[in-house]
Amino acid sequence: MALKGNACIGQSGGPTIVINSSLVGAIEEAEEHAEIDRFYGAMKGIEGVLYENFIDLFREDDQVIRDMSLTPSAALGTCRTKPNERDRKRCMEVFKAHNIRYFFYNGGNDSQLTCHLISELAKESDWDMRVIGIPKTIDNDLPVTDNCPGYGSAARVAATAVQTVARDARAFGTAEVIEMMGRDAGWLTGATQVGRQEPGDAPHLVYLPEVEVDINEFLEDCHDQYEKWGYLVVAVSEGFSFADTDIEASSEKVDEFGHARLGGVASALSDMLEEDMGVRCRYDELGNLQRAFAPCASQVDHDQAYAVGGAAVSHAVEGETDVMMTIDRKSNDPYEYEIGSTSLMSVAGKTRLVPDEWINQDKNGVTDDFIQYARPLMMGAACPTYEGLPEYPVFQKHFIDKKLDEYVREEE
Amino acid sequence: MALKGNACIGQSGGPTIVINSSLVGAIEEAEEHAEIDRFYGAMKGIEGVLYENFIDLFREDDQVIRDMSLTPSAALGTCRTKPNERDRKRCMEVFKAHNIRYFFYNGGNDSQLTCHLISELAKESDWDMRVIGIPKTIDNDLPVTDNCPGYGSAARVAATAVQTVARDARAFGTAEVIEMMGRDAGWLTGATQVGRQEPGDAPHLVYLPEVEVDINEFLEDCHDQYEKWGYLVVAVSEGFSFADTDIEASSEKVDEFGHARLGGVASALSDMLEEDMGVRCRYDELGNLQRAFAPCASQVDHDQAYAVGGAAVSHAVEGETDVMMTIDRKSNDPYEYEIGSTSLMSVAGKTRLVPDEWINQDKNGVTDDFIQYARPLMMGAACPTYEGLPEYPVFQKHFIDKKLDEYVREEE
Repeated sequence: MALKGNACIGQSGGPTIVINSSLVGAIEEAEEHAEIDRFYGAMKGIEGVLYENFIDLFREDDQVIRDMSLTPSAALGTCRTKPNERDRKRCMEVFKAHNIRYFFYNGGNDSQLTCHLISELAKESDWDMRVIGIPKTIDNDLPVTDNCPGYGSAARVAATAVQTVARDARAFGTAEVIEMMGRDAGWLTGATQVGRQEPGDAPHLVYLPEVEVDINEFLEDCHDQYEKWGYLVVAVSEGFSFADTDIEASSEKVDEFGHARLGGVASALSDMLEEDMGVRCRYDELGNLQRAFAPCASQVDHDQAYAVGGAAVSHAVEGETDVMMTIDRKSNDPYEYEIGSTSLMSVAGKTRLVPDEWINQDKNGVTDDFIQYARPLMMGAACPTYEGLPEYPVFQKHFIDKKLDEYVREEE
Repeated sequence: MALKGNACIGQSGGPTIVINSSLVGAIEEAEEHAEIDRFYGAMKGIEGVLYENFIDLFREDDQVIRDMSLTPSAALGTCRTKPNERDRKRCMEVFKAHNIRYFFYNGGNDSQLTCHLISELAKESDWDMRVIGIPKTIDNDLPVTDNCPGYGSAARVAATAVQTVARDARAFGTAEVIEMMGRDAGWLTGATQVGRQEPGDAPHLVYLPEVEVDINEFLEDCHDQYEKWGYLVVAVSEGFSFADTDIEASSEKVDEFGHARLGGVASALSDMLEEDMGVRCRYDELGNLQRAFAPCASQVDHDQAYAVGGAAVSHAVEGETDVMMTIDRKSNDPYEYEIGSTSLMSVAGKTRLVPDEWINQDKNGVTDDFIQYARPLMMGAACPTYEGLPEYPVFQKHFIDKKLDEYVREEE
């Protein structure tokens, strides 16, 4: 059962505030297992494998590793590269050349698919190796797992931002539209409603991409809420759209996975509201801060990210492969969870939307069940206060010698 | 010399993270002076005076008052209303009807002008009263005072945001443009450079509205920096523009003071860079978070805001009038200051730009002198960490009976 050799880990897709916590969890766990000889950090995700850009993680300084766990974004670099068949064959050559027997890939649903395809190829090529996906996405849209590391912190940033900006709208008696990330799934936008503590608190209206709203109902709801509270705060996902209109997030740019790059719905809604309501309306896009603003990291999210990173290593050493680690919620109050696993095929390329029953009947908010679900994930301050400005460490990067000829990707 | 009667305070213009700290400073100081009978809070700045919308600040709960000092945005509400001559006469009638002998107005340069005109009118009408301006603006563009309450915290938010988002750009090896508020003055954008601790740290390039940059030099600098560090972070003020091009912040909307509402320069630069450099470029506008994100408040800024609020009251009771309180820096390391005052006329309607000698020769950053100036103002965490989401108090609002007929403003 014992499989001895080197291990490799990569970080993929949009970074999160806690993705490095998973990396640190994996490194610290790997140090405990004699089966793992060297631990390779693949620079820029799968590209690091393709081009043999590896650093020796066991040679990094212990203090830097600890500090890295609260450093936002991917310490190893990241990419959105989707390896094609030729690329995947190259990966196998690289794994063989470096005696890599364990591969961990930390990413969202596209990355889990990459993981699965590599796992399949390893089996076909009779290369005994274990491939485990580590979940990560602020969008929280991976199926099976209760939640995704990165989500709780992004939700904490977004909900905090809404509460603070809402005070500004309240002081002026104006309207404000705040746009959160989320192409298809409204987990992040829904979570801003956790910040509503008294009736009349912001956000007054919450619109997810899962629903199509009639534009007249939208305007009516906005009027009503503004009338009632003397100001208005609307939280909206970038992927939200109306039924039967062309007001929606739009962009001609497409990323490497073929997804449109969104943004701009808050601006459109804000213009519309200002004209219709006759009150000044402003907007904010939370943008990259949602996945980067580490001073607002959630302790629960941070701990979970660390746990799934460590568990990926221990499960692999124990013989598991072709799975993604999952978080299985055991209780809500106090929040307790266990780490489990699920087959990569059960998550690869799939998107979990906010279920219908967690969206209110008026389609302008989430239900108490959603709130009960999201709140515990946003709790606790992972980052202590600091006197000055944040100082983030960087790895020393002891590169590992290359063993193969240079590789040139062929874009499809 | 002793002038007995009621006092009134209003908050004006764009709120800041620490504007309520000045309010609390004023309330707590006023409680110490028998000359001040009742302390009126004018709801929504000068509009509260015009419409006699006053609350009795001495009746607010002590704990709420203390908690209010770390609550972002204007607790009394705010406005951008510029009172015309008829309005100012109304103000005098209201002051007389309520025996208001002390008026404190907390705002930027437009508000200081309002203050001065009211002070003049009081003299003309033989109404013995003392009028004192309390400085406030995240733009830091009031003259005479060393710095403006609100600036240090906004700078801390902006610099922290740049450091965190920069990690994201670094992980992808992409370019990123971040836009800060600042129509004419680049104080806020310049302060993001305080976060640069090692060569190669972000922001790599910093563009202020005070300079006009040749577009080719801009592109060349961007290429060079990207080449050098493998990623690029550009910090830019909303009011920045190139020499001889139409790439600049633009908006057809104009606020109540006649200023154009800006925004959009980061988006334009980002598109331009992506096309020119052939690397993916993203942008973020920090938007209202700069003046609202209280979890990032600076302790020094918070303390100064409190101090100028208190000093306004004590100076007024001692007989000063027609002045704005100032912060006079005494030393840099350790940072020490005293509170002073300057005539309202010396600041009213004036804008202090970043001096030429604090902008580097290449026009793409600020000098060490700027850094030495800005750094101390951004230091210290005023807000403790919290387990859940921020919970902000509201005043109970014991309204004071109106004494005059209803007033209807005539817009000009």
